[in-house]
This record gives sequence, structure tokens and C-alpha cells, in this order.
Amino acid sequence: MAERTVFFLSDQTGVTAETLGHSLITQFAGQNFRQVTLPFIDTEDKATAAVRKINTAGARDALRPVVFSTLVQPNLRDIVRTSEGLHLDIFDEFLEPLALEFGERPIYASGRAHGMSDIEVYMKRIEATNFALANDDGGITRNYEMADVILVGVSRSGKTPTCLYLALQYGVYAANFPLTEEELENASLPEFLLAQKPKLFGLTIAPSRLREIRKERRPMGRYSTPQQVRFELRQAEKIFNRYGIPYVDTTRFSIEEISSRILDSTGVERRVRP
Amino acid sequence: MAERTVFFLSDQTGVTAETLGHSLITQFAGQNFRQVTLPFIDTEDKATAAVRKINTAGARDALRPVVFSTLVQPNLRDIVRTSEGLHLDIFDEFLEPLALEFGERPIYASGRAHGMSDIEVYMKRIEATNFALANDDGGITRNYEMADVILVGVSRSGKTPTCLYLALQYGVYAANFPLTEEELENASLPEFLLAQKPKLFGLTIAPSRLREIRKERRPMGRYSTPQQVRFELRQAEKIFNRYGIPYVDTTRFSIEEISSRILDSTGVERRVRP
Repeated sequence: MAERTVFFLSDQTGVTAETLGHSLITQFAGQNFRQVTLPFIDTEDKATAAVRKINTAGARDALRPVVFSTLVQPNLRDIVRTSEGLHLDIFDEFLEPLALEFGERPIYASGRAHGMSDIEVYMKRIEATNFALANDDGGITRNYEMADVILVGVSRSGKTPTCLYLALQYGVYAANFPLTEEELENASLPEFLLAQKPKLFGLTIAPSRLREIRKERRPMGRYSTPQQVRFELRQAEKIFNRYGIPYVDTTRFSIEEISSRILDSTGVERRVRP
Repeated sequence: MAERTVFFLSDQTGVTAETLGHSLITQFAGQNFRQVTLPFIDTEDKATAAVRKINTAGARDALRPVVFSTLVQPNLRDIVRTSEGLHLDIFDEFLEPLALEFGERPIYASGRAHGMSDIEVYMKRIEATNFALANDDGGITRNYEMADVILVGVSRSGKTPTCLYLALQYGVYAANFPLTEEELENASLPEFLLAQKPKLFGLTIAPSRLREIRKERRPMGRYSTPQQVRFELRQAEKIFNRYGIPYVDTTRFSIEEISSRILDSTGVERRVRP
């Protein structure tokens, strides 16, 4: 099936253009896309080079490329608009209605969205990441009283990547507590953890999915047997229900979704905005 | 100064709406915004509740709220559009031109952008995150031959959060190597690292900034003195230049920017797209 090239153009990282574009192109099931990100288009020379790449891709694919662009500077947008691609630009569409509403002209400054406009924001994200690392599975430091949220679950239920995402994206202090043999067999949690009960949030997952994930790591042994996996998950859910700990089934969720659901369910405030 | 409320509405996580909206509102310097994310608006009841929140905020602020929305389902968009806010919806603006271009109707399926449409994508991100954790500062495992990129720099130059972001966002296998006293004094790198030279990428940072960051962690001692910080950074840059290792000054960059610049400069391919 013919491939069409989709470009994400930005004078910065391209994260915004990619996020926007991806939301849109996934709505079309019958297309086959090649995705190309062109970040840091911040000079007229680079904009001209981007136009060349777009036109070359169009000629090769014999299909018009789609260009998701978040170029702030009008002179760069004007250059890029001369390409043969279909241009969809959030600044073209949305800046004018906002300017009218606010009664203010935009500053056309690039790099404000994901830039280091605020050193404090950077520091908060770094500190939250360090906190997640120090309070990860088997971490020695357990500053649970400093945590915004403490994720509880069996091995490979998604605790670590979720904690790191909460830290990097939202500056949230997320610790995690792995349920071990001891907790699982007694279906009970230790006192020092129960002292933080309002912060506890459980992760569970479908047994078949957990087996797949565990087998990637350790193909042999009890760790990924159907019996063991089912036992652990049953006991974990017993613990969540016993103590009234809210929990989410991560089976069909991405890391972003798990993180958003935790914030939504707990009401934990993000410390930074992306 | 009067505050205006900006809503980010989504039937999923809200990441797309936040990213888009943030890019736009940061273009207006004279406004004061309160930001509210309403994720998982996936029923008519929740859409109606969102309308109430928007109208309440408008009445309280005596300023019309701005609503960035990425609701896919037409019935939910119709409900939300009855609020008194200024509505900016990417699906309203961009879905139609794409449908025309592709000659195909959109599927109006929510949750495709950040959803678990692909278990393989999830696994890759998790595996990359585990790799970053195992190959972080002082990690025992050093699977440098498996790495896509190896970040080199002094303590607190941003290696760890950058590696984690590269893993979580792009599925890239990023290891890091902290420059210790020994390397810095001799301005040389060990053989096992030089064996991976094409993968090495350096991080540097302004001395004043590094001092600030280090003082947060350890306020006293040589670690954050001006002399020590200047010495370490000078030697690190000497190492980068000596071996021809590309490097970036992270002082004014966010984690997203550092990561994008590394991919852009090295040509390392992302293993997943967000």
C-alpha cells in the first residue's frame, strides 16, 4: 500500500506538532504513513531545506505530504507554506481568535512551550525524578512522608515507569512499594505503609498480560508461571479491597493514561505543567 | 491582575490538549491564566459536568474561559460547545481538510493517540526505561553495546533525566557515564567507553547553573564550590574536544529540548512514536 509522508515541523523540539498530528492521523484507518520530524527549524535556510525535503517526499511517494507545523515566526511560516504539502498549522488557526479574545497581540516568541522559560520548573522535575529513583523498588531511602502518591503493586505491574512519568511530566513525587511474598501471602500491608494510607494507589493487570511482560525478563522459573501470576494478582486485589485502596487495571492503558488516571482519581495536583 | 481560566478537555489523558494549548497561551505575555485539565470526558454526563465547570469559572472570573478541546466523538463535542467558553478544537479545524485529502472518513475513535493501541510499543518503552535504570550512574550492568546513545558528563549535568525521557518518550536505549575524578584529572576516557565512541554524546552546563543545582542537593563541601565546578566542566569539555565527542550545553534547555537535540544531532532513530 502506498505510503504518504507526514512531516512534523517545529522551531523547537517538535513535541507539540507530533502530539497534535498523531491525534489526527490515527483517526484515518485506511492510510499508511511514514512519519518524519524536523525539529529546530529556526532559520530561513533551515526552512528552505525543509521545503525541499517535503517536495522530495511528495515526488517519491506520488502522494501529497501532510505538514503539521508549529512555527511561530511569520517569516519561517511563509517559507514553509511554499512547499507542495498540505499545511496544518496551529498558529495559523488558533492564534488569531485568541488575540481577538485577549485584546493583545501575540509575541511570536518560539520555544516558550517546552523551553526553559522557568528554571524552577526544571528543578522541580529533576527533584521529582530523583525522588522517584530513590524511592523505587528496593530503594533504600523511603521518604514516604514526602510523597504525593505511593504506587503499590506486584512486580512488573507498571509502577516504575509510571512513577518516572509522573515525575518528568508533572513534577509529582511518586514513590512505589512492590508487594513481596510476605505481603501477598498474608494479604496485609506493613504498618509504615498504612501510616500513609491516603497516598496509596494500586496497580493491577490482567494475568495473561503480566505473564507476557515477565517472560520477557525471565523466561524460566516460577516468576512467570500462570499459577504464580494469578496468585499474586488475586492477593494484590484482596489487599486493595481490604484497605479500601483505589486501584486501576493497567492492562489496556499506556503510561500516559495510567498517570492521568492516577492524578484524576487521587486529586493530586501536578507541580509543573508541561 | 484578573485571572482567566483555561480548560484542557479530552476524552483521554488531556496530553494533546495541554500541549497544544500551552504552545498557544504562552504567546500572550499580558495575560494571567489558571489552567484546569479535565481528562476522560467520555460520556454525555461528564461532558455536561464540564460545561457547568466552564460556565462557573467564567462567572467567577468575569472573563470568558478558553477551552482547548480534543474530543473525538461528535455528540460530546456538541455538548461541550454549548458552554460559554471560547472553543478551540483541533478536530473541528483539522479533521475535515485531512478527510478531503485522504478521501476517507475519520473513524472518530478516541484514545488512539496515547492509547495502548500497540502492546509492542508499551513493551519497548518499558524495556528502554529498564535499560536506562540499569545503566544509570553507578549501575552495575553496563550493556553499552546495546545502547543507542551513551551520555557523558559531570555529576548533575542532566544525564539521568535525559536518559529516562529518551526511554519513556522515544523508546531509545540511553545509558549514561558519569565523569569521575579520575577521568577529569587525566582528561581521558577508559578504553571500554572509547570502544563505543560513535555512541558517545556529551552534556555540559554553565558553572553558575551547575552550582545552583548541586547546592540543592548538597549545600556544603567541595562539590558545589565555584573552583570545583569550573574545574570539572573545563576538564569535561577538554575530554569532549579531545575525542571529538559532540556535546550540548544544557543550561537553557528543558529535558525535552536536550532529548530532541540529541536525536537530531546523532541521527539516532526513535523506536516508538508518542
